[in-house]
Amino acid sequence: MSGVFFEGLPDRMARQFAFLNAIDKLKSVERRNYLADGSRRENTAEHSWHVTVMALVLSDGAKGLDQAKLLGMLLLHDIVEVDAGDTFCYDDAAHADKEAREQAAARRLFGLLPDDQAQALRGLWDEFEAGETAEARLARALDRINPFILNFLAGGGSWKEHGVKEQQILKRMDEVRTGMPDAWPLVLSILDRAKTQGWVAG
Amino acid sequence: MSGVFFEGLPDRMARQFAFLNAIDKLKSVERRNYLADGSRRENTAEHSWHVTVMALVLSDGAKGLDQAKLLGMLLLHDIVEVDAGDTFCYDDAAHADKEAREQAAARRLFGLLPDDQAQALRGLWDEFEAGETAEARLARALDRINPFILNFLAGGGSWKEHGVKEQQILKRMDEVRTGMPDAWPLVLSILDRAKTQGWVAG
Repeated sequence: MSGVFFEGLPDRMARQFAFLNAIDKLKSVERRNYLADGSRRENTAEHSWHVTVMALVLSDGAKGLDQAKLLGMLLLHDIVEVDAGDTFCYDDAAHADKEAREQAAARRLFGLLPDDQAQALRGLWDEFEAGETAEARLARALDRINPFILNFLAGGGSWKEHGVKEQQILKRMDEVRTGMPDAWPLVLSILDRAKTQGWVAG
Repeated sequence: MSGVFFEGLPDRMARQFAFLNAIDKLKSVERRNYLADGSRRENTAEHSWHVTVMALVLSDGAKGLDQAKLLGMLLLHDIVEVDAGDTFCYDDAAHADKEAREQAAARRLFGLLPDDQAQALRGLWDEFEAGETAEARLARALDRINPFILNFLAGGGSWKEHGVKEQQILKRMDEVRTGMPDAWPLVLSILDRAKTQGWVAG
């Protein structure tokens, strides 16, 4: 079926479409958290859209930030889940082999692209994973705060289902405290409210 | 419920989060086309992600293009569907009031943002709608070719369901011919294959 994409196309574009078709599967990767209205679980493709729009909107005051890099990083940050699946952030056991699974997926998926572009876009993914540049720190903070807010709006969502504790959330949200300090009061306020509601264990 | 987002937050950020929470509903707007594997219809949030990644990957050779603008435009191009819903591209009757519905939605949704940002991001949406700049022409071509490819991969998808004719598709794809000429042979090749399969009426 995919052979048709090569007919009449320059080789570069054929490889780009092979990549773009392969990542369609991200729409079928289910995450643990729910949509804001609680109607169903979120998938990784729509999560990637939402968190990238967050970056577009919330990075507006950040001086010297490379916005195209920030957006590209967040568009691609989870594509390895096409092969590796979503790993629940509070599942320590599943995290044991998460890196190996995701590295193999990154090699395969970015490897579909033309070589120079494979290297450039894989570089964005590596930069996000390393979390050392200004863009990566903000991107990682956004990737943390987005499902945190959705869990709250959905009435406790995956926190309740999995009996997640306050200390686990605070540990995971630490990248918001350091990467997006202006939003830290929001995290504390929501967490406090979630505890009062009994959605998060003390 | 949304009142909690204002506790301890600067007013600017409170308005940004009000916007970001409102657009979560885009994940529940169903489009006519199916995922590549045909398993279900696509929603507008995941469509927005896929077409923005297409822009990231396929714009790499375009000289002088403002990539951050292109990505921002595609991230936001369909958010009006939160209020206005998806209008099937081959439904002429529904198109009669599409513009009025979408203009009202744009006023409400972008109006949730801080004033300067409302103006800037609404500007991106207007620029996409007008289709006059280089970024908007490419964005519109990508928005056309993405569901076209998915319909093919899904075995005819919404073409078959609605008896869509070749001439209707060619008319709609004309923005690919003009905005992304390198991909035009791909469109013709796929259309030819779809006709042979009987998925598109002559």
